[in-house]
Amino acid sequence: MAAHVIDGISLASRIKSEVAQGVRQLQARAKAAHLTAILVGSTPAGQLYAQRQGEACAAMGIGYELRTFEPAVTQRELKTEIRRLNKDPAVTGIMMHLPLPAHLDRARLQYEIDVVKDVEGVNPANLGYVLYGRTLIAPCTALAVLELIRSTGVELRGAEAVVVGASEIVGKPVALLLAEQMATVTVCHIATRDVPAHTRRADVLVVAVGSAGLITAEHVRDGAVVIDVGINRVTCADGTKKTVGDVDFASVSAKAGWITPVPGGVGPMTVAMLLRNTLRGAQILAEQA
Amino acid sequence: MAAHVIDGISLASRIKSEVAQGVRQLQARAKAAHLTAILVGSTPAGQLYAQRQGEACAAMGIGYELRTFEPAVTQRELKTEIRRLNKDPAVTGIMMHLPLPAHLDRARLQYEIDVVKDVEGVNPANLGYVLYGRTLIAPCTALAVLELIRSTGVELRGAEAVVVGASEIVGKPVALLLAEQMATVTVCHIATRDVPAHTRRADVLVVAVGSAGLITAEHVRDGAVVIDVGINRVTCADGTKKTVGDVDFASVSAKAGWITPVPGGVGPMTVAMLLRNTLRGAQILAEQA
Repeated sequence: MAAHVIDGISLASRIKSEVAQGVRQLQARAKAAHLTAILVGSTPAGQLYAQRQGEACAAMGIGYELRTFEPAVTQRELKTEIRRLNKDPAVTGIMMHLPLPAHLDRARLQYEIDVVKDVEGVNPANLGYVLYGRTLIAPCTALAVLELIRSTGVELRGAEAVVVGASEIVGKPVALLLAEQMATVTVCHIATRDVPAHTRRADVLVVAVGSAGLITAEHVRDGAVVIDVGINRVTCADGTKKTVGDVDFASVSAKAGWITPVPGGVGPMTVAMLLRNTLRGAQILAEQA
Repeated sequence: MAAHVIDGISLASRIKSEVAQGVRQLQARAKAAHLTAILVGSTPAGQLYAQRQGEACAAMGIGYELRTFEPAVTQRELKTEIRRLNKDPAVTGIMMHLPLPAHLDRARLQYEIDVVKDVEGVNPANLGYVLYGRTLIAPCTALAVLELIRSTGVELRGAEAVVVGASEIVGKPVALLLAEQMATVTVCHIATRDVPAHTRRADVLVVAVGSAGLITAEHVRDGAVVIDVGINRVTCADGTKKTVGDVDFASVSAKAGWITPVPGGVGPMTVAMLLRNTLRGAQILAEQA
């Protein structure tokens, strides 16, 4: 039987409608949501990404400013800028585009971002609050994964959840969010002896590795929920390029119960989660004011 | 074959010698380590625990002060006190005895403790740094578990590690520390459908539930490393009381490769880790000064 395909675009669209409504409610109280993004070094790709982010914010009624810095900017200069943004009452959200040049200490800069304005949920304290089951603002991709699973209606309590990929920004936070929902969670990674032995017993399988077609039907349990976080550009036999996930969609979709497509799954939901986090920060600040 | 019994008292003793030496090296540079503990509400048990902590610090050459507050103390008053201690250059470590009265928000107070002075590793930011694989100061019990495993010499990379108990202060941080060592980690808890199916495949089994004799030989793989975090007071058939762990030592020690006793395993190592964290904070502050 073919799996239900989880429509990330449609789900993201619904969440964005809710965000836009939330922003209007803030505006009715003379409050605004405003995201300031920091970009170090200006590549065409980085500029394009930031431009699209600005458009996504504008569509929600969220103000957006991109602050670009030279690649030689110092740790101290960025720290000073972040502290200035923390204090600026007109700025309700702060994010820092990655990667940063090698001379900058990413985690220490993320630690400087006010926990409420940290719309990406990357301040170590926000990750610690997730571990404490006291989530304030969690990492966007991890939230996207959780929302996509929840949209299936599958019971997470007691479910066997397996996360392949132990990255700081996806695998580990996803594992904590799933444990918070009382799933039994296993995290596999490059050193795991027998990945298929784990994935085959998963009721819920999250794959975030960055390796095209890594997971095939033989890795997946009948009826499982499969969330594919991978985004890989591959060259087809005819020389054209396309974007695929870490999951071999053709074979796995014939066996799984639910599956996210790539593109159109986790990607659009991650953008929606960033916007929702931005609203959430602005709402908390509005309550505090 | 009988398991090797991991001697937590002897290992803790070695670590305490290293801590005492580190404190003397600080003193030679006219620097001191000083721990201030906050106790809200004064019970005889709490006072006794604090007294023993003071003695343990004194034996290391670490200064110790206990600051006791009335049970009615407000969140704001404690926050003000923590901020004062953060600024006091004579205080290099801060800890807050738990539990707190219900009207106080534990996590928010822990978040106020300077990340370097946070000798218990309970500031959410310190947990986030553990998740980031950038451990600054980690929770003492979780560190104790890791050190006890390391003392066996068993290779953690690629090992199947199973943690039973998903608490914020033991199970989840232990899982992150084990993942940082590239073990494949599964966290089981009260909602797990089939705990024995997981524990039986564990090369390394950590049990932190608080249920006497929960884990018996049939739950354990031959030759496994078994770390017992549980501390339970039970009444024997003859009416006497004794302290036991979550693991049935008699049966499991006949099957496991390594096992920690209770008492004499995780307990003394946790105290040693608190002292080591206190030294570490003082060392970092001395470098910064």
